[in-house]
Amino acid sequence: MNPASPWPDDGPDRAPLVAFAGTLADAARAVARRHFRASVEVEYKADGSPVTRADREVEETLSGLIHERFAEHAVTGEELGRTGPSDARWRWVLDPIDGTKNFVTGRPLFGSLIAFLDGDRPILGVIESPALGERYVGAAGDVTRFDGRPCRTSGCTRLGDARMSATTPDLFDSDELVAFDDVSFAARIRTFGGDCYQYAQLAAGHLDLVVEAELAPYDLLALAPVVTGAGGVITDWQGEALTAASGGRILAAATPELHAEVLVRLQDVV
Amino acid sequence: MNPASPWPDDGPDRAPLVAFAGTLADAARAVARRHFRASVEVEYKADGSPVTRADREVEETLSGLIHERFAEHAVTGEELGRTGPSDARWRWVLDPIDGTKNFVTGRPLFGSLIAFLDGDRPILGVIESPALGERYVGAAGDVTRFDGRPCRTSGCTRLGDARMSATTPDLFDSDELVAFDDVSFAARIRTFGGDCYQYAQLAAGHLDLVVEAELAPYDLLALAPVVTGAGGVITDWQGEALTAASGGRILAAATPELHAEVLVRLQDVV
Repeated sequence: MNPASPWPDDGPDRAPLVAFAGTLADAARAVARRHFRASVEVEYKADGSPVTRADREVEETLSGLIHERFAEHAVTGEELGRTGPSDARWRWVLDPIDGTKNFVTGRPLFGSLIAFLDGDRPILGVIESPALGERYVGAAGDVTRFDGRPCRTSGCTRLGDARMSATTPDLFDSDELVAFDDVSFAARIRTFGGDCYQYAQLAAGHLDLVVEAELAPYDLLALAPVVTGAGGVITDWQGEALTAASGGRILAAATPELHAEVLVRLQDVV
Repeated sequence: MNPASPWPDDGPDRAPLVAFAGTLADAARAVARRHFRASVEVEYKADGSPVTRADREVEETLSGLIHERFAEHAVTGEELGRTGPSDARWRWVLDPIDGTKNFVTGRPLFGSLIAFLDGDRPILGVIESPALGERYVGAAGDVTRFDGRPCRTSGCTRLGDARMSATTPDLFDSDELVAFDDVSFAARIRTFGGDCYQYAQLAAGHLDLVVEAELAPYDLLALAPVVTGAGGVITDWQGEALTAASGGRILAAATPELHAEVLVRLQDVV
């Protein structure tokens, strides 16, 4: 149960929408698998981040499916920007390949992220792992499911016991890095690597804490319903719920107690 | 072909030994899979590194199989130390679960490492990935095989084009970290995470460069035949071949040219 964020009464019916999100994830899986470890040509954006034909093809495929089914919904994607009605209340946010560096280095931890928003607020999230064939789905008012079966975060309540992770220390500016090191060296285990897959492992009870920064809206919106619906807490570094307007800093914890202990160490970072 | 290190004429026949190494990897896979994501009890060693029943059970199983088949061979493992004849020329070195932090956080990139040595020199190496069901086998005088099919490193010859990786920056002391940052920020892509799986991806052409430190003999000996047999170059930071006496610093590159370019930046680190 996720009582904190009920499914909106005046929204589209939840069950068919979750089923449709599964159809989108199926499509993402098929396209991403075709390109993974194939000799993909990699381009590099201005900031040095890689992008491949797989990124564009997944996003085009999913956008097409959404517009065909829901003409009244908007779509925002990492590669193609916003399409559909500009004043739409209901919106899909897509990250076709989250973890493109993992994707282009042969590591199967990349994922496709699908979020559904009521205004700025994510109420459905999918973390699809094409190479591993795993899917984590969270929807407001329901428990998170890993391949259809309910999953839960761990019961870890203390930072000193926590298994924690971030994709890379390169996410952090110098002030953020001081705070991140303060937290992560106090944890039981400090690991790196994994992008969206870290949040899936948090939801499934294998990781206790993820602290990151510099995430874009399409990186983070799908994560919130997955973590929350599994009993975890996910906010920015001020303790605010994640929305399309969030600043990109994430604190995700297995329990409210662990979240509170870490929040104290992060909330003063300017 | 791996002409640099031929299989010893007076050694055990290569083909049956490679087949036996496959039997060991099958056994490691079965045990590791049974414990992965099960509620494994984790203990922590004096240095904070985790160890589980899976580590001990994999090593006991493999040691048992080796002693049963080759009474004249010695075995050295991460968890159980050295067994078998103390003056044996032929020796197996085992890391039952390399990447235990990945193992205990639900990430499938951990592996089981099996090396076979002639004296101090590794002539056979297996990187077995139980959770992914992938196996990389290198044997002196033959090409490296990924699930039985030959694989090759990429053709990357320049650091500026290289996709590089290390498990974590925490591997490095302060002098090493300066050199690592110098190299890794000059690469095209700098990523973290993966333990032995990084070397498998290097052998398969998806990563171009791995630079690490603080590796124990059981971590590194199996990697050398896999990388070398795929056309790559793997040495310590002085350019010396890896042996049981190596100091734990590794430089693995897709090509001799890339190896030479990076070696210049690492060889003066004290």
